[in-house]
Amino acid sequence: MAKTLLRVLAGEAVWPPPVWLMRQAGRYLPEYRQVRAGAKDFVELCLTPDLAVEVTLQPLRRYGMDAAILFSDILMLPYALGQGLRFAEGEGPRLPPIRDVAGLAALDPAGVPGRIAPILETLRRLRPLVGEATLIGFAGAPFTVACYMVEGEGGEFPTARTLAYRDPVFFRRLIDLLTTATIDYLAAQIEAGAEAVMLFDSWAGLLAPLPFRRWVIEPAARIATELRRRHPGVPMIGFPRLAGLQLGAYAAATGVQGVGIDTAVEPGLASQAVPPPTALQGNLDPLALLAGGEAMQEATASILAAMRGRPFVFNLGHGVLPPTDPETVATLLRQVRAG
Amino acid sequence: MAKTLLRVLAGEAVWPPPVWLMRQAGRYLPEYRQVRAGAKDFVELCLTPDLAVEVTLQPLRRYGMDAAILFSDILMLPYALGQGLRFAEGEGPRLPPIRDVAGLAALDPAGVPGRIAPILETLRRLRPLVGEATLIGFAGAPFTVACYMVEGEGGEFPTARTLAYRDPVFFRRLIDLLTTATIDYLAAQIEAGAEAVMLFDSWAGLLAPLPFRRWVIEPAARIATELRRRHPGVPMIGFPRLAGLQLGAYAAATGVQGVGIDTAVEPGLASQAVPPPTALQGNLDPLALLAGGEAMQEATASILAAMRGRPFVFNLGHGVLPPTDPETVATLLRQVRAG
Repeated sequence: MAKTLLRVLAGEAVWPPPVWLMRQAGRYLPEYRQVRAGAKDFVELCLTPDLAVEVTLQPLRRYGMDAAILFSDILMLPYALGQGLRFAEGEGPRLPPIRDVAGLAALDPAGVPGRIAPILETLRRLRPLVGEATLIGFAGAPFTVACYMVEGEGGEFPTARTLAYRDPVFFRRLIDLLTTATIDYLAAQIEAGAEAVMLFDSWAGLLAPLPFRRWVIEPAARIATELRRRHPGVPMIGFPRLAGLQLGAYAAATGVQGVGIDTAVEPGLASQAVPPPTALQGNLDPLALLAGGEAMQEATASILAAMRGRPFVFNLGHGVLPPTDPETVATLLRQVRAG
Repeated sequence: MAKTLLRVLAGEAVWPPPVWLMRQAGRYLPEYRQVRAGAKDFVELCLTPDLAVEVTLQPLRRYGMDAAILFSDILMLPYALGQGLRFAEGEGPRLPPIRDVAGLAALDPAGVPGRIAPILETLRRLRPLVGEATLIGFAGAPFTVACYMVEGEGGEFPTARTLAYRDPVFFRRLIDLLTTATIDYLAAQIEAGAEAVMLFDSWAGLLAPLPFRRWVIEPAARIATELRRRHPGVPMIGFPRLAGLQLGAYAAATGVQGVGIDTAVEPGLASQAVPPPTALQGNLDPLALLAGGEAMQEATASILAAMRGRPFVFNLGHGVLPPTDPETVATLLRQVRAG
């Protein structure tokens, strides 16, 4: 009998639905903060299999989640490509920006296998430890990763998005390079033990329609197509955050087995835009989880009611917020598991 | 013969479409910066009819825009309600936050007419000066205004959105108070000369579906219904920014004559979600306008092609960015007017 999350991604309406949470391994858990305090920095935490395995498993032990998602970061790919990466405490990621074709030449794609080796080692160790949970590998989608690489930091990426208009030759080369690198990176994660992969396009919703097609839908379709060819049967979840009205076009063009829906999406409308057998995954507001109580219960009930009878994975619409009470997460899981 | 923008809001597919730009009176214009430098601060600029009339008319003189939008700010309503408001230079608005029912009691709705008198005077003076352009009044929608009032500043409003879950009694009272005040404020603007009104819900897209219905759709529907009763024939444009899949529900529930669409919306999909005779207004990416050249031309052509044959007002999907070259705006207008 296959794992429940894999059954859902194969198009089956399992009920109650499998559940996991984006950033389920994170700062809201005291056991995570303890491990984190023992690492020099966030990058070291991601690159030390002993530590990354431990924090990946923590939410499984505490809540029995139905998925274990590799503990890593979408910016480990630029790191692996040789772009400097550090996480300034309390300020988010910083990278030396790349803004022209010459900057691209300084990247080192040949060095990727060596730099991602510890991440693959983490997956190899995790696979026999996850039990009935599904082990999910992931990468940032080319557009979102490109935004950080060009801007050098988070935010709304005005420089990156303007450059995509002003220097489409450069931006196209960057997206193509990332698309190829992401295919290889996700394929390597599958070969190391990932049973499903997820592609996070966290900033897709910033784009106007033409750039959305070029920088979000087309690269995701290339990645999904090539992974299906290399690893048929391994499902992919695409998460084009804030895709809005273009959610259906994304699902149709990529052929992914699962589509992540963000907090803003009305589940019934998502279900029309992305019909079965494609699974949907989402989309409780992390602020409703933070608030807990009746607000959380009402929002959760509304999602469950809309998704009953179709392939669905319960999740948040964005990551768990650090001030969330771990007890509230337990309350949420009881409600979801009661269907 | 009615003004072109009013004909479009009455459901007519005028071509080439009327055009105006959000923040068309603003820092990208040297003549605006000159007037702005003469005012003590931004609030004084909004409250001094001599100055507000002048900056409202500047883009009409320079480009012959088809609409003149009152020069003001969505936060003039909290100001009018007696909440302190200042614009910290380069940092955006600051208000002393209101976070409980007691805070609401300190507001002074009875003082609104006195505080908005200069704004109405600006409209009275503008009306005979706008020629063939349509004079548009506006207000922030209750949810967006409430976010600023609770948070005390801009951003993603985590405090306000969490409080909406945690203290729905308080948040409901605040939204109700703002809904009533907004109806009176927009009605007063119409009585002072506004020929159409626009309701800006700039942060609607932050909301999950249940709060979206409660805090965005329902208040907008109340405002639209009551304005239709008080001033039948005066059209309203609703702008639920980043409403995504819920754009159609917003249009249907409010019955507004025009719906503003943000940068991320694919025009063809918007046209299906909001069918004629409701007009659409938008949605060139302000970054495409900033970039100019081929990128702007391609994006503009794509919007025009999708909107030809239906009631449509050309605009941006968000406001003009300060570093925009005024000459690029002239180039854009030539393309739009060539249809």
